[in-house]
Amino acid sequence: MIDDRFLYERISRRLLEQIGAGSFTVGQKLPSVRRMSAMFKVSVNTVMQSYRQLEAEGYLEIRPQSGVYVRSSDVHDIPEPDGSRYPLLPVEVSLSEQVLHYMELHADPDMVRLGIALPGPEVLPVDRVMATIRDVTRHHALEAWDYMHPNGSALFTHHLARRSLSYEVPVTAEDIIVTSGAMEALSLALRSVSRPGDTVVVESPTYYGALLLLETHQRKVVEVPTHPRQGISLAALEQVFQRGGVAACLVSTNAQNPLGFTMSLERKAALVALSERYQVPLIENDVWGDTVYQDAAPPAKAFDRSGLVLYCSSFSKSLMPGLRIGWAAAGRFQKRFRELKQLSTITSTSISQIVMGRLLESGFYAQHLRELRLHLHDQVEAMAREVRRYFPPGTRLTRPTGGCVLWVRLPGGVDTLALFQRAAGRGIHVFPGGVFSVDGKHADYLRLNAGSPVTAQVRRALCWLGEAAAELAAENQRR
Amino acid sequence: MIDDRFLYERISRRLLEQIGAGSFTVGQKLPSVRRMSAMFKVSVNTVMQSYRQLEAEGYLEIRPQSGVYVRSSDVHDIPEPDGSRYPLLPVEVSLSEQVLHYMELHADPDMVRLGIALPGPEVLPVDRVMATIRDVTRHHALEAWDYMHPNGSALFTHHLARRSLSYEVPVTAEDIIVTSGAMEALSLALRSVSRPGDTVVVESPTYYGALLLLETHQRKVVEVPTHPRQGISLAALEQVFQRGGVAACLVSTNAQNPLGFTMSLERKAALVALSERYQVPLIENDVWGDTVYQDAAPPAKAFDRSGLVLYCSSFSKSLMPGLRIGWAAAGRFQKRFRELKQLSTITSTSISQIVMGRLLESGFYAQHLRELRLHLHDQVEAMAREVRRYFPPGTRLTRPTGGCVLWVRLPGGVDTLALFQRAAGRGIHVFPGGVFSVDGKHADYLRLNAGSPVTAQVRRALCWLGEAAAELAAENQRR
Repeated sequence: MIDDRFLYERISRRLLEQIGAGSFTVGQKLPSVRRMSAMFKVSVNTVMQSYRQLEAEGYLEIRPQSGVYVRSSDVHDIPEPDGSRYPLLPVEVSLSEQVLHYMELHADPDMVRLGIALPGPEVLPVDRVMATIRDVTRHHALEAWDYMHPNGSALFTHHLARRSLSYEVPVTAEDIIVTSGAMEALSLALRSVSRPGDTVVVESPTYYGALLLLETHQRKVVEVPTHPRQGISLAALEQVFQRGGVAACLVSTNAQNPLGFTMSLERKAALVALSERYQVPLIENDVWGDTVYQDAAPPAKAFDRSGLVLYCSSFSKSLMPGLRIGWAAAGRFQKRFRELKQLSTITSTSISQIVMGRLLESGFYAQHLRELRLHLHDQVEAMAREVRRYFPPGTRLTRPTGGCVLWVRLPGGVDTLALFQRAAGRGIHVFPGGVFSVDGKHADYLRLNAGSPVTAQVRRALCWLGEAAAELAAENQRR
Repeated sequence: MIDDRFLYERISRRLLEQIGAGSFTVGQKLPSVRRMSAMFKVSVNTVMQSYRQLEAEGYLEIRPQSGVYVRSSDVHDIPEPDGSRYPLLPVEVSLSEQVLHYMELHADPDMVRLGIALPGPEVLPVDRVMATIRDVTRHHALEAWDYMHPNGSALFTHHLARRSLSYEVPVTAEDIIVTSGAMEALSLALRSVSRPGDTVVVESPTYYGALLLLETHQRKVVEVPTHPRQGISLAALEQVFQRGGVAACLVSTNAQNPLGFTMSLERKAALVALSERYQVPLIENDVWGDTVYQDAAPPAKAFDRSGLVLYCSSFSKSLMPGLRIGWAAAGRFQKRFRELKQLSTITSTSISQIVMGRLLESGFYAQHLRELRLHLHDQVEAMAREVRRYFPPGTRLTRPTGGCVLWVRLPGGVDTLALFQRAAGRGIHVFPGGVFSVDGKHADYLRLNAGSPVTAQVRRALCWLGEAAAELAAENQRR
């Protein structure tokens, strides 16, 4: 039996169903907490938890001394995962090698770039970074020329660690190892805690790169249903942990790719507690953490008292992908992680580390993030408006809390791989949803990158995509 | 039975023994080819092959219309490998994790840097590279900001490929995949052709990083005796291949680390032919290839008709380690290699690739290499003179044909790990020989880096090392 710690989530779900079905309409006041508690036969506390959750997700508004009101009943929201499609059993990953081909189109400068999840140069401080690089070539030439210390530049790791001072369990400079991007960090983290044949739990949908990584390293995968606003189902996760035989769990808790949710602090702490109770290492991919719109969002690592969380991040999504600089704090696995790092790439590019150290030290990076979050939020909302306008009725989409992607479900059972191919021929790069799961569970989804402003060109591309989606749905119906 | 293709090597060895023993002295004329052929009961051709080999190694001089004369009988030469210590059987690597600690001292700027094998900034064009970086930040900012194409920068791979036009089998731009240094290339090459538990053949002594790589990836190792001037024993290699069960062979054919030999073209071709005959992939670590003193030395890859050679190289040893840029041409394993690369670090640092592309395009790199080779040759010879002067009698050392390391054998059975530790306390970083083999076969060897000019400080360090070596030998004797 699954315990009742997550009862409030079930209450939230039932409330949302009623809002979606029109039982409660926007602006309407909900019954009092006491009455709801009686209706659902749960405690007053559980109702309050559920209300707070739905408020955080934008559905409700709690007005002090007045009551709780419906704020949104957006029928465009993507549906919650259908538990029956998740057998919670280990399977082998065998995603087509084609995925690497899907990524390649990004390198074509003539494409409309809605494929790779990446903020564009319009919202990133390209000139300032280039100026800092020039400065480093003048004042730190010898340091830039040489191998860096195996752990990374001391200035850089010092300032990385300082950013975690507000965590319950801060990361220290000694915990940190600099990597060549977050992908290297994830790869080394995986190899630090597991071996070929082992089973690793992932979110579903999850970043396709994580699935490919698991495939390349011959790990088996258990997919756990993941809620578009709350994140990985802790109840299902516990069920899998209870059964045993799990070597690691790979998750994103901030601005997850592709769903865009940010887990609540409470759920992050509960996730770490689960990892501790069952002694399963948690590999946390926080590559989007710095883009959470609201404010700096502490990762699950912030609650890691027992060193079971292998935290991985980078600056590819928040500053400059070409730097190829990431970092990890691998907790109790740090020694093994560091050995693997040195035999993977020895050290990471020196100039990139010095540049990042200086941008953190001067406060420029923090200031840049404040602007970036506003830009990304605006761009994502602008793109969502266009999708609602141009895509066929029945299209559903996420309401991200960070990052720059929209996760879009097309109506009519359209396989988005067909849409991807038609779009590529048209000079539009999008990403088909099938590869965000091991078995094509999300084949009718599409991921759109809102990393750049919605220009007239982008609008035309979205309009074309919407029409193509409608055509494909019609073709499906005729068959 | 081992066939007679390498008979001339045995003849050479016997001749060298006689020269070393004083049977033939420097300046003396050797018996005619015909007489030698009768003495050794081999063909005239075999004697000529042997003479040519010994001439290439600097022992003999062939004067046309006159005869063959002894040129050198340098008693400082390190001894040939003792075949009896090579059982040619697979063993597991378990080098102490301490090796990573040995490397770490390099990051201490106050150390006399005789440890890591690396040309110093004195002989590398630091200013020119920094100026090129500045130029790229001004004129290629967006390209430097972005992810590079998964295969690497087109300008860069184009010019890399052009350098191989004189090979029997040139490398094309399409064959090339850019990596984050040669270590990533070696790691991906290994994973492209083998799995945990597999057996890989290596030279002995070999680069300790290669052994650590095999340890981390749980490969077993067969060590093949390697001649200080001719390279890996092809006869022993064939014996191992014949027995079967070998997944790959990892070698260096140019300016090998630590021995400094460069294999003859004939032996390189024979090595590739062996790999073809037994269908064993050859992983070629050519990171020192550009530093061969004589001239550009084609690698074994130059003879690779069947795509079995996975060539790996970088610019860390010839231009700038901090760039972290290497490359590979993985032959028939390219597809798998590329998949692994994308899931290792996605792409490599953009600005480093653009910079290298421009330095190759302008001809600057080729011009720089001509100067670098002269510098390294001079520095290595200067350091060898100091070692002969200050180290105890009975010390032996290599005569490198490229690169910047000396491989030094101490007399009196000194364990150089003790010397390493004493030297570290004294602010001198050297590398103990024990880690260049799986079982401490070379524990009485020391590797010295001659990457920087022999300054008064370096001379003092060598003088101190020589004295310490003598002391340790004396301590050994008293026990």
